[in-house]
Amino acid sequence: MLITAAEAAKELLIHDNIMLISHMSPDGDSLGGAFALYYALIKIGKRVKIRCSDDLPVRFSYLYCDYIDNDFKEEYVVAVDVAAVQLFGERMSEYCEKTDLCIDHHPTNEMYAKNTFLNHHAAATCEMVYEVINIMAIPMTQTIANCLYTGIATDSGCFKYSNTTANTHIVAARLFELGAEYEEINRFLFDTKSKSRMAIEQKILSTVEYFMHDKVAMIFITQKMINEINADESELDGLSALPRTIEGVEIGLTVREKVDGKHKVSVRTSGDVNAGELCGIFGGGGHKRAAGCLLECDLETAKARLLTAIEPLLQQ
Amino acid sequence: MLITAAEAAKELLIHDNIMLISHMSPDGDSLGGAFALYYALIKIGKRVKIRCSDDLPVRFSYLYCDYIDNDFKEEYVVAVDVAAVQLFGERMSEYCEKTDLCIDHHPTNEMYAKNTFLNHHAAATCEMVYEVINIMAIPMTQTIANCLYTGIATDSGCFKYSNTTANTHIVAARLFELGAEYEEINRFLFDTKSKSRMAIEQKILSTVEYFMHDKVAMIFITQKMINEINADESELDGLSALPRTIEGVEIGLTVREKVDGKHKVSVRTSGDVNAGELCGIFGGGGHKRAAGCLLECDLETAKARLLTAIEPLLQQ
Repeated sequence: MLITAAEAAKELLIHDNIMLISHMSPDGDSLGGAFALYYALIKIGKRVKIRCSDDLPVRFSYLYCDYIDNDFKEEYVVAVDVAAVQLFGERMSEYCEKTDLCIDHHPTNEMYAKNTFLNHHAAATCEMVYEVINIMAIPMTQTIANCLYTGIATDSGCFKYSNTTANTHIVAARLFELGAEYEEINRFLFDTKSKSRMAIEQKILSTVEYFMHDKVAMIFITQKMINEINADESELDGLSALPRTIEGVEIGLTVREKVDGKHKVSVRTSGDVNAGELCGIFGGGGHKRAAGCLLECDLETAKARLLTAIEPLLQQ
Repeated sequence: MLITAAEAAKELLIHDNIMLISHMSPDGDSLGGAFALYYALIKIGKRVKIRCSDDLPVRFSYLYCDYIDNDFKEEYVVAVDVAAVQLFGERMSEYCEKTDLCIDHHPTNEMYAKNTFLNHHAAATCEMVYEVINIMAIPMTQTIANCLYTGIATDSGCFKYSNTTANTHIVAARLFELGAEYEEINRFLFDTKSKSRMAIEQKILSTVEYFMHDKVAMIFITQKMINEINADESELDGLSALPRTIEGVEIGLTVREKVDGKHKVSVRTSGDVNAGELCGIFGGGGHKRAAGCLLECDLETAKARLLTAIEPLLQQ
């Protein structure tokens, strides 16, 4: 059942021995929301534990430095920022059917919980957790502010993404007043890259090719590069946004060789060309600004096919 | 004389035939503030023109698309975000002594104007212009919101820099309500790089060297690189922040060859080492986190000298 922030707050107030669940491969919003709730609820004497199918990333250790784990039989299960049953992950999968409350901002939420507080206008689940803690009238500390700020900055791309709203900024203002250490948090979140990420970026930037009066830019990621650097999958995140960030480029393509020699293509567009339409030609799909497809051929053929398909679209 | 926002508003209300001046090499804050004031003041029937020593950058054309220039004898001169007389630039230098009002957030403001509305707690001059327009009770349009948001995002690094305050977020929230096109603006400001910037980043990333258990990272910019890419000075902006963004790196150094063969060194630190202290050893200076010095020797010697100086500091 869909419930309001006030009802979610009431649920949390009347229950004890609470287990908070973050989604698998936890990010700043899921962890920030869970830890903010933890720090708030223990302040009013509740027993609370946090569980996650995966290990908590070390770079978020500032969120859990004051967390004291203790084991007890949970009587109330809360999923934080977990949109789908599948996202509970292997180790936590048994709890998807036992979830009493889900707090989430994803419009795709599967409504698996007994009660769901859903607001898809919120940039982050942490924006909603802020509201819930406020209604419970639990005084917020700097630690709680740091947790909530982490979630909001993560999911709004530090207030850059289109999901950011006036309310996102209003909550951020309040977290600043509470002493949120936004400078350090933003450095962790946005201005830190691993050595191998630096290396892969360098290699990839060296492959940029321009076509059609520089309106089209293409980068290439080969298996050889990935092996040489020994980069894991997560270190390739976001690279497909790169060619479109070049000034004047309307169509940015990232062509990535898969282990079987086929080529995965990610397309990002500004301007008039529809990325989904372009990828549709090759049996792929997506949105106007971002789409993908798979080309079952070698690199040179893939390149030629893509350019042949792009030319008429760009001239329209 | 220092005046308040209310007094600045009153000054603008009682005068007409106003000339607004942006600083030389105008940035988003100076232009955003000037154009916001322009759009506000023409709404209440004033004659207003904007002047700047340099041409307005094309990438800011969305700020001035509705600007109608007309020439008249100015009766009231307002400098926006211009901290020092020198920043009027050659073509506007005559006006530094004729400035009636200066609106600025730089703590280093030289107080050259008849009246100065200064608030060095503001992240951007645009945060102050927002206040002044508000006091004048001129209804803000989307165009004005776009101008003000541009200045705030520029000078706060999209709410990442330490100058960001709760008030910065509160003003941003208000500008969102007015329809500020923050997504497009942020893309222009932060997610667009020139072709030659991409090329120089690629070259520079390929030079990274690590020392002292990867706590020290060094990058090198040679005259050969700069010439090969034909990059201008502005395209090298911010590169010295790069090595410090690598995970685990506490001291990031950028060693740049000058035309005379000497080497300019920029140091950025996190952790305990004081960048200013390190650069002080070589006759340079700066702050704890950012400093610079000049080494009058070849690259290999410069590298060795720097590492010799760093070792004991890192061990302290």
